[in-house]
Amino acid sequence: MKVVIIGAGNVATHLAIALSSKVNIVQIFSRNKDNALTLANKIGGFVEAVDNLDHIESNADVYLISVKDDAIEPIVERVSRLGNNALWLHTSGSKSIDVFRTHLSRFGVLYPLQTFSKDVALNMEEVPFFIEGRDDETSREIKNIATLISNRVFYADSEKRRQMHIAAVFACNFANYLWTISDEILSEANLPFDVLLPLIKASVEKIGKVAPSLAQTGPAARGDMNIISDHLNSLAGNKKEIYQLLSESILNHKNNL
Amino acid sequence: MKVVIIGAGNVATHLAIALSSKVNIVQIFSRNKDNALTLANKIGGFVEAVDNLDHIESNADVYLISVKDDAIEPIVERVSRLGNNALWLHTSGSKSIDVFRTHLSRFGVLYPLQTFSKDVALNMEEVPFFIEGRDDETSREIKNIATLISNRVFYADSEKRRQMHIAAVFACNFANYLWTISDEILSEANLPFDVLLPLIKASVEKIGKVAPSLAQTGPAARGDMNIISDHLNSLAGNKKEIYQLLSESILNHKNNL
Repeated sequence: MKVVIIGAGNVATHLAIALSSKVNIVQIFSRNKDNALTLANKIGGFVEAVDNLDHIESNADVYLISVKDDAIEPIVERVSRLGNNALWLHTSGSKSIDVFRTHLSRFGVLYPLQTFSKDVALNMEEVPFFIEGRDDETSREIKNIATLISNRVFYADSEKRRQMHIAAVFACNFANYLWTISDEILSEANLPFDVLLPLIKASVEKIGKVAPSLAQTGPAARGDMNIISDHLNSLAGNKKEIYQLLSESILNHKNNL
Repeated sequence: MKVVIIGAGNVATHLAIALSSKVNIVQIFSRNKDNALTLANKIGGFVEAVDNLDHIESNADVYLISVKDDAIEPIVERVSRLGNNALWLHTSGSKSIDVFRTHLSRFGVLYPLQTFSKDVALNMEEVPFFIEGRDDETSREIKNIATLISNRVFYADSEKRRQMHIAAVFACNFANYLWTISDEILSEANLPFDVLLPLIKASVEKIGKVAPSLAQTGPAARGDMNIISDHLNSLAGNKKEIYQLLSESILNHKNNL
């Protein structure tokens, strides 16, 4: 299977390295030639690095587009001349499969749910991949490719992928913001943020074993109104609003069980 | 140093085991004799198990009270006859040091910031301990005891300990509630919660290396108003309110940097 990688960012780098022992990567495209060369060198073998979309191979089996969301469509328009028979994939969590629809005939999505840093190796087998093909046959092909590198492959249409993105915003982006608030509160008390790390890690270990709703602890989960009002009294502004809304939600959640 | 442990719950168990190789634990008290015996057996040696407060040794150097918050004061009242010379400690994050003040003369707090389960061993050396003594000399004594079992000992008066508790509510209890929301969103999309675990773990690893405010990613951190309003449109009720409040807070936070 001949594969062209379009993009040389974090996701492209991790996918290309994971795929390189399973498929024949023939070309890396990046607008920045140095980035394309760096990735080509990481993979080794006879991988060409190109920085001009017109120089992309026309006879590959799979084209994997792994670039910023807004760059996907312009690239698809430019390269559509290449590929009626090839399989075209993007790796975005937010872009619909429809970005391909008027330009190509075999296409889909191969989305790894993980945050990647170029220089931090990670075990790709454990990364959940969400795939979507334009039809069942294409979905099967994409599933086969994803299965080459991960043990955790799920089918998710664009709507399902969107729901997952919302879930990830709550679980990661918003959780991180709560940690920012904790950091600010601790700084005011002259305590370093990392005193909380063992407790945060223990909380994450717990939700690896039981559902988060069963792992809920704290004043609101206990219905301890004295502590809640004591805490609210010593908070102000945004922090107070957030404390109040989340405590009320936990109290209601508890009462609805 | 002769130590009596009052309590045989999760915290008492972990502290007693960690202390047992450093000090001479002479007695375990629990209202439930079986629990006292179980802990005494875990420690080994000549440790007496008692279930009657009147049978508590009168000549120990340290009495460590590790029971539910509301049970501390009644116990202190009952045992105050024992100890003008001994050091009395409780292990609560929320109870003030004042619970001892009218009853005893040498006292303080030894609070380990971690969630304990009786049968899950953990590395006590990494658990942050927060100590407070009635005066500087007592604080030094308590610090010496804490240092026997942990490398991370901090002084925190009752107000500082309260601030830390608020920070922990944000960092752990509220973060866990966000994970509950994610779980619900994923269930609706027929996806298992554990697809998010690798991403959550990566987020926690990140805040072990950089401050959470620097680790912030996501639609609000990017100022991507299209995605935010798209997500808000597909949420309702509590989830929508929480998404909105946290996104606004992240947007404001970003603009204030």
